[in-house]
Amino acid sequence: MGAEQSTKPGAMTTQKKAVVLLSSGLDSATVLAMAGQRGYAPYALSFRYGQRHVHEVEAAGRLAAALGAVGHRVLDIDLRAFGGSALTADIAVPKGRDLTTEGGGEIPITYVPARNTIFLSFALAWAEVLGAADIFIGVNALDYSGYPDCRPAFIAAFENMAQLATRTGVSDEEAVRIHAPLIDMSKAEIIRTGLALGVDYGLTTSCYDPDPDGRACATCDSCQLRLQGFRQAGVADPVAYRPGS
Amino acid sequence: MGAEQSTKPGAMTTQKKAVVLLSSGLDSATVLAMAGQRGYAPYALSFRYGQRHVHEVEAAGRLAAALGAVGHRVLDIDLRAFGGSALTADIAVPKGRDLTTEGGGEIPITYVPARNTIFLSFALAWAEVLGAADIFIGVNALDYSGYPDCRPAFIAAFENMAQLATRTGVSDEEAVRIHAPLIDMSKAEIIRTGLALGVDYGLTTSCYDPDPDGRACATCDSCQLRLQGFRQAGVADPVAYRPGS
Repeated sequence: MGAEQSTKPGAMTTQKKAVVLLSSGLDSATVLAMAGQRGYAPYALSFRYGQRHVHEVEAAGRLAAALGAVGHRVLDIDLRAFGGSALTADIAVPKGRDLTTEGGGEIPITYVPARNTIFLSFALAWAEVLGAADIFIGVNALDYSGYPDCRPAFIAAFENMAQLATRTGVSDEEAVRIHAPLIDMSKAEIIRTGLALGVDYGLTTSCYDPDPDGRACATCDSCQLRLQGFRQAGVADPVAYRPGS
Repeated sequence: MGAEQSTKPGAMTTQKKAVVLLSSGLDSATVLAMAGQRGYAPYALSFRYGQRHVHEVEAAGRLAAALGAVGHRVLDIDLRAFGGSALTADIAVPKGRDLTTEGGGEIPITYVPARNTIFLSFALAWAEVLGAADIFIGVNALDYSGYPDCRPAFIAAFENMAQLATRTGVSDEEAVRIHAPLIDMSKAEIIRTGLALGVDYGLTTSCYDPDPDGRACATCDSCQLRLQGFRQAGVADPVAYRPGS
């Protein structure tokens, strides 16, 4: 463990540190709350990666503060250099897709190539510097858009690789663990879990294509999954949707 | 495979694309030449990651052009946000270490946490957008500084994870391959291989701590390993070392 994590008697804290990937969506907000509840001192990590709107990054800052993150870093990485996604290139975000039929097997154009691999790699770097062995990510394999890097097998393979990637992998220190606590939960379960932990979902933003005032479109895949989750949880979604949506 | 890789009859080229990680050192320059020799159309990928000198990035551009890269991207990623290394923080680069005795087991302070994991993750993203299944990296497990992410087991684990991380991993397309052709070679063998392929090592730069004119120090780990390699290959190193070194 690094010098920053002091566990000697009389030290200020013996809490284990964890790096938590924080976008601004309801999933990662819930995960940040869960990491705190499990006793970790959470360090939130967000990215400006050329996504089409900056609301996401502003929201992440508010969430990190509200949910008790001990630290919050926002890294700039320009995934527009590669493109290949509706979120990082001039490609229209699909609207009104029937996710019950169109979701099956096909990967939508909102998929950002290797995004979670890149995010987890940076989390691994920060964890090593912090002396942390735990990384949290809000991927979900149930109510999701069919992204390959949201599947349990991907998370397990990344965790396996992480053991060998860092100092931790050559000494006898604690093994790196990638926590994906939402992976088998429905959106409704995630929302109920977060509400029980006091998450203010009014601070989150899920829309792939908000209007200039940050109001959600209600019809992109992400909005559809979110709205369905709130419906199934029997709770009103506190965020603003654009008029007429 | 993506739209960019056309293999239909009459197309301009049927060469397979490969992403090649290119710093400016002799290892990655040799790998770029090897990828071309193996018949790949090489796309070179370099990073400005907060390393202490910009010579590295300038040299990478000259190398990419000289060695026939089809494309070259330089990405900005700020690893100084985390620090934890003599290459990304205000920590002195160690000089004059006895690598025959001090190299054993200990990871030096020039190790950058999770650097190769991050670099390979970006290469994976670009490969997916290009429709390429092959990634080349110049890691070397023999004449190296003891970095965990230069070991064969790490490369194998990353390759395994990469199968699950992208579109390629959910369809029946070609498996991702991480090529590390130098992994078992001595520095002298690498140099002889490169010279046979016409690599101009005068365009490379290996020093962790060059002077303002870009001249190498001759005493950091990287210079020591380089100089020893040229000596063993029986060839003069064409780069400039600072006077008196």
